[in-house]
Amino acid sequence: MIVILKQNPDREQLENLINWLQSKGIQIHTSVGMTHTILGLVGDTSKLDIDLIAALDIVESVKRVQEPYKNANRKFHPEDTVIQVGNARIGGGTLTVMAGPCSVESEEQVLAVAKAVKASGATMLRGGAFKPRTSPYSFQGLGAEGIRLLSLAKRETGLPIVTEIMDLSQLDLFDDVDVIQVGARNMQNFNLLKALGAQEKPVMIKRGLSSTYEEWLMSAEYVMAEGNRNVILCERGIRTFETCTRNTLDVAAVPVLRQLTHLPVIVDPSHATGKSHLVPPLALAAVAAGADGLLIEVHNDPACALCDGPQSLRPEAFDKLAKKMFALHDFLKNAED
Amino acid sequence: MIVILKQNPDREQLENLINWLQSKGIQIHTSVGMTHTILGLVGDTSKLDIDLIAALDIVESVKRVQEPYKNANRKFHPEDTVIQVGNARIGGGTLTVMAGPCSVESEEQVLAVAKAVKASGATMLRGGAFKPRTSPYSFQGLGAEGIRLLSLAKRETGLPIVTEIMDLSQLDLFDDVDVIQVGARNMQNFNLLKALGAQEKPVMIKRGLSSTYEEWLMSAEYVMAEGNRNVILCERGIRTFETCTRNTLDVAAVPVLRQLTHLPVIVDPSHATGKSHLVPPLALAAVAAGADGLLIEVHNDPACALCDGPQSLRPEAFDKLAKKMFALHDFLKNAED
Amino acid sequence: MIVILKQNPDREQLENLINWLQSKGIQIHTSVGMTHTILGLVGDTSKLDIDLIAALDIVESVKRVQEPYKNANRKFHPEDTVIQVGNARIGGGTLTVMAGPCSVESEEQVLAVAKAVKASGATMLRGGAFKPRTSPYSFQGLGAEGIRLLSLAKRETGLPIVTEIMDLSQLDLFDDVDVIQVGARNMQNFNLLKALGAQEKPVMIKRGLSSTYEEWLMSAEYVMAEGNRNVILCERGIRTFETCTRNTLDVAAVPVLRQLTHLPVIVDPSHATGKSHLVPPLALAAVAAGADGLLIEVHNDPACALCDGPQSLRPEAFDKLAKKMFALHDFLKNAED
Amino acid sequence: MIVILKQNPDREQLENLINWLQSKGIQIHTSVGMTHTILGLVGDTSKLDIDLIAALDIVESVKRVQEPYKNANRKFHPEDTVIQVGNARIGGGTLTVMAGPCSVESEEQVLAVAKAVKASGATMLRGGAFKPRTSPYSFQGLGAEGIRLLSLAKRETGLPIVTEIMDLSQLDLFDDVDVIQVGARNMQNFNLLKALGAQEKPVMIKRGLSSTYEEWLMSAEYVMAEGNRNVILCERGIRTFETCTRNTLDVAAVPVLRQLTHLPVIVDPSHATGKSHLVPPLALAAVAAGADGLLIEVHNDPACALCDGPQSLRPEAFDKLAKKMFALHDFLKNAED
Repeated sequence: MIVILKQNPDREQLENLINWLQSKGIQIHTSVGMTHTILGLVGDTSKLDIDLIAALDIVESVKRVQEPYKNANRKFHPEDTVIQVGNARIGGGTLTVMAGPCSVESEEQVLAVAKAVKASGATMLRGGAFKPRTSPYSFQGLGAEGIRLLSLAKRETGLPIVTEIMDLSQLDLFDDVDVIQVGARNMQNFNLLKALGAQEKPVMIKRGLSSTYEEWLMSAEYVMAEGNRNVILCERGIRTFETCTRNTLDVAAVPVLRQLTHLPVIVDPSHATGKSHLVPPLALAAVAAGADGLLIEVHNDPACALCDGPQSLRPEAFDKLAKKMFALHDFLKNAED
Repeated sequence: MIVILKQNPDREQLENLINWLQSKGIQIHTSVGMTHTILGLVGDTSKLDIDLIAALDIVESVKRVQEPYKNANRKFHPEDTVIQVGNARIGGGTLTVMAGPCSVESEEQVLAVAKAVKASGATMLRGGAFKPRTSPYSFQGLGAEGIRLLSLAKRETGLPIVTEIMDLSQLDLFDDVDVIQVGARNMQNFNLLKALGAQEKPVMIKRGLSSTYEEWLMSAEYVMAEGNRNVILCERGIRTFETCTRNTLDVAAVPVLRQLTHLPVIVDPSHATGKSHLVPPLALAAVAAGADGLLIEVHNDPACALCDGPQSLRPEAFDKLAKKMFALHDFLKNAED
Repeated sequence: MIVILKQNPDREQLENLINWLQSKGIQIHTSVGMTHTILGLVGDTSKLDIDLIAALDIVESVKRVQEPYKNANRKFHPEDTVIQVGNARIGGGTLTVMAGPCSVESEEQVLAVAKAVKASGATMLRGGAFKPRTSPYSFQGLGAEGIRLLSLAKRETGLPIVTEIMDLSQLDLFDDVDVIQVGARNMQNFNLLKALGAQEKPVMIKRGLSSTYEEWLMSAEYVMAEGNRNVILCERGIRTFETCTRNTLDVAAVPVLRQLTHLPVIVDPSHATGKSHLVPPLALAAVAAGADGLLIEVHNDPACALCDGPQSLRPEAFDKLAKKMFALHDFLKNAED
Repeated sequence: MIVILKQNPDREQLENLINWLQSKGIQIHTSVGMTHTILGLVGDTSKLDIDLIAALDIVESVKRVQEPYKNANRKFHPEDTVIQVGNARIGGGTLTVMAGPCSVESEEQVLAVAKAVKASGATMLRGGAFKPRTSPYSFQGLGAEGIRLLSLAKRETGLPIVTEIMDLSQLDLFDDVDVIQVGARNMQNFNLLKALGAQEKPVMIKRGLSSTYEEWLMSAEYVMAEGNRNVILCERGIRTFETCTRNTLDVAAVPVLRQLTHLPVIVDPSHATGKSHLVPPLALAAVAAGADGLLIEVHNDPACALCDGPQSLRPEAFDKLAKKMFALHDFLKNAED
């Protein structure tokens, strides 16, 4: 950590700071420049509260050299985290395809979609039971009944399931769920993250709408600091000024996170774009960039004019895409030297 | 609501849509253009799910004409909402000053600050007991003990208190709290909002880091739809590309919200900027723009080098600012025709 | 175009508006709703100034149904634009690779890089002679001498060249240049765009740092409206809150623009990320998303410690990447049904 | 400047770097940490190219301690820059009000508005002759004729004029212009900035749509580095996710720039919001925050339904606002201790 002092810092405050840092076992290297003095802090600075130091009257700015996350940091855990969920293996060179309806609507719907996506090679079933909606007047999901229907589909197909939790009070309903998803709007719901860190199921954290990689990894760190090491990161697009797509998928998140962390990275092209015809090119782009898997919405009900989500693929389109994705994944593996 | 259809829409789907809309009591005016057909929906469209309609294969885009919020909408409630909390009156032409420490640290600290800000004219005491922090390794607040200390200060000074809730499980501890604050990162924690709508204390909702006015008002609507009409909005800066200030205070929020909603609007210049020397000019700007009040951090401990928050004013500086703000508020009232 | 009127619009102003629109040959369909009246404008609205209409006292908002660009619009020009530059063919299913140094530095450097990238399959040579720099104290490029060195490399290798113009006054120096690049910061330098529309060389327009697709296409329209139809679009990343990468590459721009326009779309993963190790995964992602080509920085001078741009690949790394990109492009072509 | 090295840097490259820095007269302080080595560079680092250093293989990141701008930096020029333009004085505690129509449309219009704003206390006349428009099909301003009409109004009223230049080729027409405005989209048109630095008229630089303070000050530095010290900065709102207002006015720019630079700061609430009813509260907020002046659109033609810009005030509304602004400016001056 580097502390840049203001010009002519108060001597007493500077001494206080240096004594306090030394009491924490930190060594201090001082560089006196023409206009500024710089303190280089050497030692384990990961537990120092950067805001407290930046708050000092005598400090102009503070810059971390070490990342503030430890458990999620590849530097300290060079091996890829691989998570086994039923028959699905997430991370470690596999391509995990999680597919299913945006919202669980009926037994018929979820069973039909589950069977279809399994036949196309999907390894997990996704589906929303609790739906975060901007408006209190919009459909909020089937709730507990939705989870029951997902369990049913799991028993029928053998596909492990991933679904979103919105509040701690729902956790009891998640017994049969295999991976618990934390939505973008809850990425910094720290109490929820802590509670999910204190249980054993894998947790998939979607990136916040305008969050940085570091904030996202700190949310993973909240879960991991409580003991749960099975965290999956899911890029789902960030808010930008572009309005043609709902969000802007940040494909670079895949190779950047590959370097920063050992956790698997999944990409959700459906929510990112909000338009089904953009899902195939972006799913392929994610595979080409090295993603560990995809989260894709599939819907099956051509009769119901009002439910065919604009971002959902029909099973036939999904089947075609799945084949292409797996072939591309193989092609790129073989292209490696 | 206006529905713009894609070119050459499928006739059966179009009929389905029109029948479904009519079954909801909506009248439809059709304009056939050279390249597009447009449906003008007339009637109470506030309960129509815009996403479902936009999701249809035959629909190119949908545009709301009515705002999606009703309870928070000034069009339907032209009178200012005025909230009485102890002796403090929020809204309706008053200037409410909520002041106090960022974090509650000790009895001595909170009492000293509470007395000081009261003497300077503050009408409410603010202070953090539960602190949302990006890092699990940072100080997370005193929790229940922090609330106990705030109550103590309330009894000593008579100032009503406002403090942040982070999770529903904490609600039992808030008996003695007067206004419950929802933090920026929880602005779209919909379960929390619903629960706060089902209780009686006023709720102050901070704007999310990259939220629009409409999203913010929809969060107020979540609370109000459950029956609690006492909602306060707090502008605290939004995330922009500027890094000199922690966030960018959006002063225009004040006059824009004044027009869109009848709810009181408070401005927090301390969190917005993260720098104490920027608090006075921005507090004055907020008053000049017509804010109903301010939320200002005040800290009192010059001895403790490590706690002097970079965004906190000392009591003397706060006193000077408070005098100026009240004088400015009076000046502007008198300047009105 | 749809015009949403304010509640109770002034009758005289409304009549003025309707008469004025009709005088422009526009038909008007009126829908009277409970709270708003909506005018549906039918006819050629592309020349109507949306800002003027939105500016009227009686108008609440205006929504375009037709896109404001015509020459660049795929609806009116369904065939892909294919641009022939020397032996290079841009668009129409080919994969154009433009490679070379960020800045032209010396004859030796540019010749060595040009030969190397040609051997790896690049079809055009890129290189900066005029460099837009944030600081007046930074190196601003070799200027005219840089262009001379690029011409030399063109004669040696046969590769057509693409380089950036910063100001109209430089145009005389561009005789030997094959494609003129307009940088991100000049995307809305409308006088420059008009002048480039009045000459014959193809123009490659980089997307502005925070521009939308529509603004970008309107910049292409500026060139095309003057008669020059040979416009190439280059996605180079947009500004977001993420600081790990210099910009965020918007891969979705490729399939979205494919639908909106017939112009070729090139992707620049070097500038987007600012880090050479991110170039290969993002270049592959761009190919997978369907890009017409790539713009890639290649540098050759391992001895000169101070010039090895962090975003530049060495020729060997570029050679490996080029092979992979071409193989991937073939793979995806064959995977099409 | 601080250079943070990657772990285990190549020794030869490190030596090259150190020798090169020392050859520039820079002293180097080295701190060896557990995971990183840090170089503290002491001396005049303002001419070092930070990008070149960051580009080195052995460098993880570089952090400036000194600001990269010198001429615009208050640290080196503590006194406020005050610019005299005719009878108007910009900076140094005055409140300069520049008012006039968005576009110059006719002699009658510009004369009437000029007289009205002068009577209300405006000290400069603004008006657009060359208008940057997103669409090539929108009205682009009267050009040379617009400048002629502004000159006429200047002779009639004595008000100095400020108007926008879009391209160097227009400079000859600006003989009678008093302050040359550089628009937001040209903020980083570096050739234009250099040329304006080589002439003598004051230059007012509008902030780019998504520019940081530092980038903005570097644009001022481009002008100043060529010798022209009379630069004015104009905050006109930045692009954010909010769509209710055209841009988000960053009032904090005023006190932040006051600290960073000695140049005067003007605020444009008309363009920032795009709505005339938001101009008065934001103009007052800007005065309360300490702005040196305002740029306000005033329009006078109630008959012409199609030209009444949504962001323009009528003369009567402007008159009321001007009185309030001057009174507020006086009030705040007297409130200072």
